Amino acid sequence: MRSFLLYSRKGRTDSKFEEEKLVEAGRMDLVCRCIPAALWISHKARDDTKLFVNLNGPPRAPTTICFDGSKLVKVYVDEKMNARWIKKLLEAKYGKDWLDVKGSLVAKKSFQDIIKETKSNVYVLHEKGTPIEDVELKENPMFVMGDQIGLPGKEEGFALRKGEKISIGKNAYLVSNCIANLNWVCDQRGI
Amino acid sequence: MRSFLLYSRKGRTDSKFEEEKLVEAGRMDLVCRCIPAALWISHKARDDTKLFVNLNGPPRAPTTICFDGSKLVKVYVDEKMNARWIKKLLEAKYGKDWLDVKGSLVAKKSFQDIIKETKSNVYVLHEKGTPIEDVELKENPMFVMGDQIGLPGKEEGFALRKGEKISIGKNAYLVSNCIANLNWVCDQRGI
Repeated sequence: MRSFLLYSRKGRTDSKFEEEKLVEAGRMDLVCRCIPAALWISHKARDDTKLFVNLNGPPRAPTTICFDGSKLVKVYVDEKMNARWIKKLLEAKYGKDWLDVKGSLVAKKSFQDIIKETKSNVYVLHEKGTPIEDVELKENPMFVMGDQIGLPGKEEGFALRKGEKISIGKNAYLVSNCIANLNWVCDQRGI
Repeated sequence: MRSFLLYSRKGRTDSKFEEEKLVEAGRMDLVCRCIPAALWISHKARDDTKLFVNLNGPPRAPTTICFDGSKLVKVYVDEKMNARWIKKLLEAKYGKDWLDVKGSLVAKKSFQDIIKETKSNVYVLHEKGTPIEDVELKENPMFVMGDQIGLPGKEEGFALRKGEKISIGKNAYLVSNCIANLNWVCDQRGI
């Protein structure tokens, strides 16, 4: 099982945003692009992969969504359809425990809750981390990353108690492209 | 100089499509996602990279757009802004020769015209190609790929007269993610 945890600093936590105005909804466009990058493969869903999106924007932060490839029949590739899907999840009446909405999960969980709960091997993406080519990735990796601004220090520190810093190069890449690259590296290594 | 050539089978060749209905415009959503995958790096444009998009949809196919990272101040990351940019280019009165529209180029050129004109080393992305880890990529690579359906046999054969087939794995990846992966491999190898 492979997973990704994306920290979104300002991603809205209700469905009151327009599918045509995703940038304004706390960079929900970025979140939407991560879904196919994480879960799409060969015209279906990666059934061994989960994407956790931790949203910290108004009005009811924190909220975390979990997209589980094994529960999905198809993965939408365009921003608009993914935005529609996120809105459906955020419209549900969820609390502290995971609520299943057609195979995807939503809960009032924080970034730290997800780190605490995971049994995966945590890798925090960071420009100053160990180059990935020198890291022997263990099974069940969880790759943790921030949005366009990056992880807040507090969250990064918390994740690092359980994991290690890795880097995919000195360049800053788009988050969705980081996910695509990490998926590709794992595919190549057969993890 | 690194370049990508994307063959879009049905991408519209006029601006009569809505930014909110990109899937219906011959999968212009896919084209839009390739722009940041090819050109965005570290919050600016890759100044050593070009993306050629060859559109073969109605009403005036073939049309090719060339996005040149060295001429761009910024690269939009969301589909909508990129769609708006493509529409501006398609609205211009272009003919057989490249027309410069604020740093990007548009012309009534075919896929084969671009292959004929390029001085780059051509690599055609194909599931049955040589694995990229076994290929010593030469300088000035041009990576050629099809859309969600793939390259037509005729175009593939033409490109292969000048180049070779390479593969990034047995899985089918999203075209934009293929571009992201190829950019990353080239970055890692310092090409």
